[in-house]
Amino acid sequence: MKKFVNDPKQFVPEMLEGLALANPETLKYVPEYNLIMRADGPDQNKVSIVQGSGSGHEPAHVMIVGKGMLDAACPGDVFAAPPFDYVYETTKMMASPKGVLLLVNNYTGDKMVFDMAQEMSSAEGIQVRTLFINDDVSVEDSTYTIGRRGVAGNFFVIKAVAAAAERGADLDEVIRIGEKVNSVTRSMGVALTACTPPAKGSPLFELGEDEIEIGVGIHGEPGRRRAAMMSANEIVEEMLTPIVQDLPFGDGDRVALMINGLGGTPISELYLLYGQAHKRLAEQGISVGRSYVGEYCTSLDMAGASITLVKLDDEIESLLRDPAEIPIRVF
Amino acid sequence: MKKFVNDPKQFVPEMLEGLALANPETLKYVPEYNLIMRADGPDQNKVSIVQGSGSGHEPAHVMIVGKGMLDAACPGDVFAAPPFDYVYETTKMMASPKGVLLLVNNYTGDKMVFDMAQEMSSAEGIQVRTLFINDDVSVEDSTYTIGRRGVAGNFFVIKAVAAAAERGADLDEVIRIGEKVNSVTRSMGVALTACTPPAKGSPLFELGEDEIEIGVGIHGEPGRRRAAMMSANEIVEEMLTPIVQDLPFGDGDRVALMINGLGGTPISELYLLYGQAHKRLAEQGISVGRSYVGEYCTSLDMAGASITLVKLDDEIESLLRDPAEIPIRVF
Repeated sequence: MKKFVNDPKQFVPEMLEGLALANPETLKYVPEYNLIMRADGPDQNKVSIVQGSGSGHEPAHVMIVGKGMLDAACPGDVFAAPPFDYVYETTKMMASPKGVLLLVNNYTGDKMVFDMAQEMSSAEGIQVRTLFINDDVSVEDSTYTIGRRGVAGNFFVIKAVAAAAERGADLDEVIRIGEKVNSVTRSMGVALTACTPPAKGSPLFELGEDEIEIGVGIHGEPGRRRAAMMSANEIVEEMLTPIVQDLPFGDGDRVALMINGLGGTPISELYLLYGQAHKRLAEQGISVGRSYVGEYCTSLDMAGASITLVKLDDEIESLLRDPAEIPIRVF
Repeated sequence: MKKFVNDPKQFVPEMLEGLALANPETLKYVPEYNLIMRADGPDQNKVSIVQGSGSGHEPAHVMIVGKGMLDAACPGDVFAAPPFDYVYETTKMMASPKGVLLLVNNYTGDKMVFDMAQEMSSAEGIQVRTLFINDDVSVEDSTYTIGRRGVAGNFFVIKAVAAAAERGADLDEVIRIGEKVNSVTRSMGVALTACTPPAKGSPLFELGEDEIEIGVGIHGEPGRRRAAMMSANEIVEEMLTPIVQDLPFGDGDRVALMINGLGGTPISELYLLYGQAHKRLAEQGISVGRSYVGEYCTSLDMAGASITLVKLDDEIESLLRDPAEIPIRVF
């Protein structure tokens, strides 16, 4: 394994320490609970928005903490749900009179921990609700999931609920918006290579020299099928057709289109995919209102990409346009 | 080779088309000259800032065109200098009464083309100057370079000259600032893996299972030495020490610190490197005034990273703080 790692056990804490050192004015790292929170938070005048997940999906979610996005992110170790007590303590620290929303991508381990944290902190009088995101159309049920998996589409849910919270919406309204965005968001991914977790030191699964996994999960879970390597345009078709048919999206729809890199794919290739997806949608009468190209929800160093579509209306588009102040930028 | 590619010959045009489709309000793609320019440019009230280079280094430079950064980027094919006539036509299209500055990382092929374009367009009455960037401390002279190579440190030069131009500085003043920033900027990189150009279809050089290249160039050029894989902290030391000693940076200095990913390394590892570099600088009395972590100047899918330090003063820091509107963002 060739990675920038010291002790694999310290991989996540060292990353979080670096993140906080790079953003001293906006972020605070609480090592006891693996917590990254806004340095000025929690804001007692708004609903607190928290997302937890395993690590290894960066920038999700520790690198999108900031005004207009998450108030805190509560990561576990690589590809592992955060421990219950971390989530519980995070929820208490994020308590606000307007309530706390815990966002969770739909994986059984995470769901169990967050459901328990919600129950325990509710019992202590904190107003807290949980919202599960399940945008991946690839498969029903999966290695770590009952139902559909949650993948990069959760960024749209996070952005919309965070913007609504900043505008002063109450917890019921924030949840209405989150559920609405989740209901019109669909994703699918493809892996060209496996990923290598630092603690394992070798690829998480085997993928042949000329093989790709269509519909892969962000922890390397199997998708719909293995296929021989194909052209970029053919791969776009493999992802886009099931997404469009699922909601379905159709003639006259206006969408947000995201091309998400899985960690090891250069942004040049992502823009090439974007061009083809944009044109294929246009041929079906679907226009792109907002575009997102880059790394959002990754799978360590996996070469691959996912496509997400969100059906826009004026309310969702307006929320997506609101400003957000997060560490990710170029200049 | 497993990449998102259709025809390798169309890799760059298809990427550029995707980039323009994703940013219809701000970017314009001119296929005849492989040119990406501001949709509203050139602004006749400011010096035009243009950077050219081979492709394969994205986001450099086509993805950093926008108000406050480049007015245009003129890329060649992957790892190839742009053709002379593309640079010449781009220069003419970017002509402004206040002049044009052509920024070029120091590689012999690029230098030749841009020198010629400057001469030819000057002969036509365009006020145009060229500035070469050479921040890489790894080696003097290299596979494609006489003198030192230019790498990710050029982002600081671009940002500073672009901000100065936006503020209304004349061409002499813009060049003074560019030369000043270049003179206090130092970088060095390390490769954990080779990169694979789409048209070649196989790795550009061989690197053993447990081997790394210290001081690698962004086209895979040899650096200072091959070494056995080591810990992240040891690798930071290998890059940071030569950088600090070169200027030299010392006790009391305030710097910008950039950790640049080379394309195949996840951002989690880059933040881990950042933390160690930040702490090692602090131990030497060097404080970080501005931090940059992510992909700036890449080498296709190469796993690896580079470190850049810039010695800050009030003038440079102020220019770096100015706003820039470019495609790279998360939300």
